[in-house]
Parts: sequence; C-alpha cells; structure tokens
Amino acid sequence: MNTATNVQKQLSRVDRALRSGTLADIAGVISEMSPGDVAHLINTSPPNYRHVLWSLVDDEQEAEVINELPEDLRNAFLVDLQPEELAEIVGQLDDDDVADILQELPEEVTSLVLSIMDDQDRARIEAVLGFSDDVAGGLMSTDTITIRADLTLDVVLRYLRRHSEIPQNTDSLIVVNRDDAYVGLLPVRTLLVSDPNVSVREMMITSREPIPAGMEAAEVARRFERNDWISAPVVDDVGRLLGRITIDDIVDVIREEADHSLAALAGLGEEDTFSSIVQTAPRRAIWLGINLATAFLAAWVINLFQGTIEKVVALAVLMPIVASMGGIAGTQTLTVLIRAFAMGHINDRNQLWLIGRETAIGLINGLLWAIVVSAAAAMWFDDIRLGAVIAAAMFINLLTAGTTGALLPLALRRLGIDPALAGGVVLTTITDVVGFLSFLGLATLLYG
Amino acid sequence: MNTATNVQKQLSRVDRALRSGTLADIAGVISEMSPGDVAHLINTSPPNYRHVLWSLVDDEQEAEVINELPEDLRNAFLVDLQPEELAEIVGQLDDDDVADILQELPEEVTSLVLSIMDDQDRARIEAVLGFSDDVAGGLMSTDTITIRADLTLDVVLRYLRRHSEIPQNTDSLIVVNRDDAYVGLLPVRTLLVSDPNVSVREMMITSREPIPAGMEAAEVARRFERNDWISAPVVDDVGRLLGRITIDDIVDVIREEADHSLAALAGLGEEDTFSSIVQTAPRRAIWLGINLATAFLAAWVINLFQGTIEKVVALAVLMPIVASMGGIAGTQTLTVLIRAFAMGHINDRNQLWLIGRETAIGLINGLLWAIVVSAAAAMWFDDIRLGAVIAAAMFINLLTAGTTGALLPLALRRLGIDPALAGGVVLTTITDVVGFLSFLGLATLLYG
Repeated sequence: MNTATNVQKQLSRVDRALRSGTLADIAGVISEMSPGDVAHLINTSPPNYRHVLWSLVDDEQEAEVINELPEDLRNAFLVDLQPEELAEIVGQLDDDDVADILQELPEEVTSLVLSIMDDQDRARIEAVLGFSDDVAGGLMSTDTITIRADLTLDVVLRYLRRHSEIPQNTDSLIVVNRDDAYVGLLPVRTLLVSDPNVSVREMMITSREPIPAGMEAAEVARRFERNDWISAPVVDDVGRLLGRITIDDIVDVIREEADHSLAALAGLGEEDTFSSIVQTAPRRAIWLGINLATAFLAAWVINLFQGTIEKVVALAVLMPIVASMGGIAGTQTLTVLIRAFAMGHINDRNQLWLIGRETAIGLINGLLWAIVVSAAAAMWFDDIRLGAVIAAAMFINLLTAGTTGALLPLALRRLGIDPALAGGVVLTTITDVVGFLSFLGLATLLYG
Repeated sequence: MNTATNVQKQLSRVDRALRSGTLADIAGVISEMSPGDVAHLINTSPPNYRHVLWSLVDDEQEAEVINELPEDLRNAFLVDLQPEELAEIVGQLDDDDVADILQELPEEVTSLVLSIMDDQDRARIEAVLGFSDDVAGGLMSTDTITIRADLTLDVVLRYLRRHSEIPQNTDSLIVVNRDDAYVGLLPVRTLLVSDPNVSVREMMITSREPIPAGMEAAEVARRFERNDWISAPVVDDVGRLLGRITIDDIVDVIREEADHSLAALAGLGEEDTFSSIVQTAPRRAIWLGINLATAFLAAWVINLFQGTIEKVVALAVLMPIVASMGGIAGTQTLTVLIRAFAMGHINDRNQLWLIGRETAIGLINGLLWAIVVSAAAAMWFDDIRLGAVIAAAMFINLLTAGTTGALLPLALRRLGIDPALAGGVVLTTITDVVGFLSFLGLATLLYG
C-alpha cells in the first residue's frame, strides 16, 4: 500500500471523531497533519465545526495553519485572540504574510501588535506594510541572505554555516554592493558544485532583472511563470534591494487571480465555498438586483412591440432564441478577452487584430446560424417571412455580440473597470436589447 | 530609472523592427531576451508574425522557447522540423516536458525521435511516457539526485561537487535505500548549514509523504499549494522512487486548471488567445449549435401557451425576466460548486451542507425578488393578478436554480462529466423551461 492516502485517512478519522464527539482523538490526528492539511480540513468543514477544529490546533501549529487559511476565516479566528497571542503568532510568519494579516485587522489591533514586537521585526513588517498587497512590495519578504561579490565561495559557505538558518525557498543568495544595490544572484546549486576558491563575482548571474517594488502582482506572477523562477529580488526606484518574492506567494496570486475572473463573471465577489447563509444571501441578492434592472430594460423594449406580438404570437415564441444566442456568442468573446487579460496577452500590438477576428467570427457564425434558424422557424410556423425576420435578427445580434464582446472589455479596462465583473452584465444587456429590438422591429416593418 | 522595463523596451523594439522589416535587428533583441519572454512575444503576436519570429530564434534558445509555448503553437512549429532537429531540441528539456511534447506528435515522429536518442535518455523518457500527463507520473522528471541515509553530509557535499550539475529546482536531495525505495528528504538548506560530520539519517526529513505516480495532477497541485513545496518525490506502488515533480510544472497545472473552468463555462475548449479564424469559428459554432437546440426547447414550451399570450401580451413582455433571473441565480450556485471542485473543497462531509445552503439562499432570494418583481409588474400593467403570477413563478424558479445549481454539478461529476463544460447548458435549459412553464402555466390557470 502506498502511504499517500494518509491524508485521506486522517481526514476520515477526524470526521468520525467529530460525529462521535471524541475531541481528544482529533487533537492527536491534527498534530500529525501538516499545517496546510489542517487548514484544508478546517476550511472544508461546515461552519459549525470550524471553531471546534481551530480550538484543537496546538499552539506550535497555530501560526502556520492561520497562514494557510483563506482571509475571511483567518480574520474570524484572529479577532478572538488577545494582542499578545496575535503578536506571537505573527512573529513566526514571513513578513509578507504578516503584512497581509495586519492589513485586514482593525487599525488599533494592528498598532497594538506592532508595539509588542521587537524593533527589528517591527521595522521589517513596516517596510512591507508600506505597500499594498497587489504590488510586488506587498508580496515580498525582507528575510533575505545577501552577500558581496568579492567574497570567495568558501567564505560564503562558512558564513552560511554560522548563519545557521536559511529562509525557506532560498534557491539563490542575493549579491549586493556597498550601497545595498542589487548586483546579481548566486544560485545555491552553483555554490554547491563550484570550486570554493573562486569568487562570487565569477559565478554570479547578472542577467536576471530585479522586480521593482511597484510592479503589479499579476505582472510579477506572469514573470515567475514565464521564467520558472523560485524567488526573485525586489528593488526600490534606485535599485536598492528591499526583499525577495518567493514562488509560494506567487502560486497564491495565480490561484486568486484565476479564481477572481471566474467568480466575478458570476457576480460572486470574495465569497468562500463555505460562507454562511447570512453572509452569502445578501451578496448574491445584489447581483440578482442588478440583473433584474437589465431584464426590465429588455422587457421595456419588448413592450414597445406589444401590437406586433398580438398579431403574430409566434414572435413571442421565437424571440428568446435570438436574445439567447447573442448572449452565448458574446460571452464566448468576452471570456476570451478576460482570459487573455489574466495571462497578460493583450497589448497595443494585437488588440486590433483580436477585435477583427472576433468580428469575423461573429460574421461567419451569424451567417451560419441565421440560415439554420430561419429554416427551422419558417418550417415550424409555415411562414417564410418569419424565417427572413429571424435570419436578419440573428445575423445582426451575433455580429454585435462578436464586436461588442471584444470592444467592451478593452474599453472597460481603459476606464479602470474590471471587465470580468461588469462585462457580462453590460454585454448580455446589449445582446438582449439588440436581439429583441432587431427581431421585433423588423417584424413590425414586415407585418405591421 | 529601474531596469525592469527592459522587457517592455525589448518588445517595442521588436515591434518597430517587424513593421519596418529590419529582421536582423529583431534577432539581436531576441537573443538578449529570456526564453520565457521570447515565447511570450511569439504567443502574443498575430499569426502572420509568429513564424517569422520563430525563425529568428537562434538554435541555442530554441529548446527553452519551445518549452514555454502553448501546446497548439508548439506543435505547429515542431511538425516543420526534421526528426534529428527535434531529437536535439527535446534532448535539452526535462523528461516531463519531452513526454508532453512527444505525446502530442504523430506516433511515427515520436518513435523516430526516440530511436535517435541515446539509450539512457530514451529509457528515462519512456518511463514518463508510460503515464498520461494528467497524473503525477506524467509531470515528473526522472532527473533526480539520490543519496543514502548512512552517508555523512561531508561525503554528500563532495559527491555534489563531482556531480557538477544539479538539476533546476533542487531544494532537497532524495534519500533512498538499497532497493531504491523512498526514505526521506535532505533539504539543501539543511545541508548548507549543518555540521558536515553528521549523517544524512540524522538530518533528513521523513515526515513528507511521497506522491504516488497515479495521483491526479490536480490533486498533486493542491498538495503543493497547501504545503508550499518546491519539489516532491514520486514513487510507484511499492514505494520505489520514480522521479520528482517540481513547482514550475505545478504552476502550469494550476494555471491550466483554473483557465479550464473559465473556458469550459463559455464552451471555448482549448482555444488559445490568438488562434486563427479558421480554427476558432467552427469550435465556437458547435457550442452555439448546442445552445440553439436548448433555446428551441424553451421556445417549444412557450409555444404551448400561445393562446394565453394572445390574450395577455404582457406575459410575453415579462416572461424573459423570470427565465433570466433563474439563469443568473443558477449560474452563481454552479460557479461556486465548480470553484470548490477545482480547489478540492468538496467531499462527502460537506456536500449535503452545501446543497442545503444553496437551497436556503434560493428560498431567501426567491422570496425577496418575488416581492420586488410582483410589485413592479403589478404597477406597470396595473394588474394585481399579473403580479401574483410573476411572484410565484420567480419564487419557483429561483428555488429551482439554487437546488439544481448545487445538485447538478455533483451529479455530473459522479457520472464522470465535467460540470464546467456541461453544467451551464443543462442548468440554463432547466431554469428557462421551469421559468417559462411556471409563469405561463400559472397565467393560463388564472386567465385561461
């Protein structure tokens, strides 16, 4: 038997213990699990079990578990703690994680926690707290090992041995000059295999650009992805080393960013999987309300053509088809653009080409489905004119969907509005209105 | 000025050179760029420039650039190469990347390339080729450094220096026993700071579970995320070491998986941002066709109530509101479930709770919006009965949306169907049909 199902076994043991109420047993299992797995256990448990499980985490694991929990849940646990306990927990974490946590807590708690820390820790945390968490500076840890270029590798090795603790994810030592300016990187694997008598200068890599502290987190993540980095140095405006960013935080950025697009398109916001009904229902309600307003707008358009519908009821039967196909085609184009933004694919060189392609696809698919739909409609209601009307409306709406689906997110982005959040609502409103207007309008011309 | 905008500057230089046709200049810029950035440049260029740019990549960079390109594009370039060139390129890549590439190429090309390789390389590649790329075995590289537990750290250090090349992303050496079974990990950072005279056994970590080769790629990614790993050992059924998985490949898994949900919900498949019109239009058309069929189903439902609509045309005006609100609410719930699946949040312990919560939210928001909509409709058409009908239909449809939105993806998953791909279509069909049926059906009872 392989051992990898251990985690699953541990989870089932916790589950049985929760049901039978033998909490002492759970504490035992939890202490054997990795902090990440404990966080996963707590996060995937229904709300009523979460506090029980958290209370069973022992003090040593608390900091690491907290660090792996989603924000909502983390804050819910942290506000219950005394500032001293909080200071102790955050003292065990990386600066960027501490900064993340402190930024979310009430200001008086944050300053209390900072005041309890020792001077060195406080200075480090404050350096990171100066940046928002969506730029490189907010992702960095100031806990770096820096060396000078004129040392020999042997001296570096002896220095490390004295240092006694190397920060996690240290794949490279950072080479700086006298002014603390970034000079290059010395990969640990180079250090391990090279002649100890050569100098750092001879072995270091100088081709790696450092990350400016103000770079957007999403762009930092794309650089990590493109270049398969484990860590990267962060510098200020004049090239002075501020800290370094490690891949574990980048993985979180990638996950959150990708998840954000998906959630925003459905109007879900920062909702976590197991948020309570009381938290969730109002958030969803707002989105439904916005969509209701746009649905009434579409209804108002239909209302303009009451007379025509009364004459030809088949129009009421067919009109949702035109609107719905436009919505589907528009969402396809919109999603392509949102994905492309998330991956940093869109720039001035290619956006015209993209708009052109989406328009062309709208044209082609508009023609194709216009023919299919008009044949089906004409046969169903035995009315050639109805076929002609729906063909024209379908073509107009699919073409609109393609062009608008591409132009709209580009325009929203320029205005600083998130296309994933606003794009879907605006776009389906457009395709609904254009769909109903063209279909019922043309029908009125023909039958009216 | 910080140096980090270099990449942007390089891209603009390429852009100007492409327009003015001074290709020699581009080759110079490309040779200065990192392979990841070159791949990004090619990938974000319109199709007609892509081959030109690829032809300007020099031989040394080709392998790394190929490795960073999306699949479609990579294969388009590779099929143009002679098997010898192909073998040379793939010879420079990690096994898992080679396996990925070879799996996508025609079988005769693959066997030709394999036959050109030296025996050792071929054996390694074939080990990985035995696994599909959506399980751990397909993600692993067999290029590992293994050591025995009874060595002293000093011996390990001398061994490494002789070894002269340590694979990328080696944060730990893997400790195996005489039978090549996995025993534990010796982190490089422990090796660097510990007394050279102690044994590996004393310093190694034995608490890290290895990854079984058959574990799903998505689950492997979640373990990396939860535990902030850089690399992890992969073992076979009896615990023998097969290779190791590194974070760079996990980052790709996370990105692809997240992207997959987004793309599948819009029916986009594996489409890349800059696919040509010829490739894209037919793929999109299929999705539109499926949705057209469901739209006709909804139309058929409406058609049953022609008589009622003729009597009360306001029904035609209002009916899209009921259907659309159901679709929005259902998509919210569906998206919550799809995200939760992607993050590995759903298990037997919590799915009933989730279904319950979504039903409750459907109930609450159903009641809320039933009241709002009925008031608006009653006032607009000055008809209390119309308000009552739309209130009841809205409540029924939002409740259906919540319950179905949760049950459907769980059921599809059990049947082995991807909820992100099929869920949206099935769900909006249900909310459309239930919406029209309840609204027009109740109206027929009241007015008929």
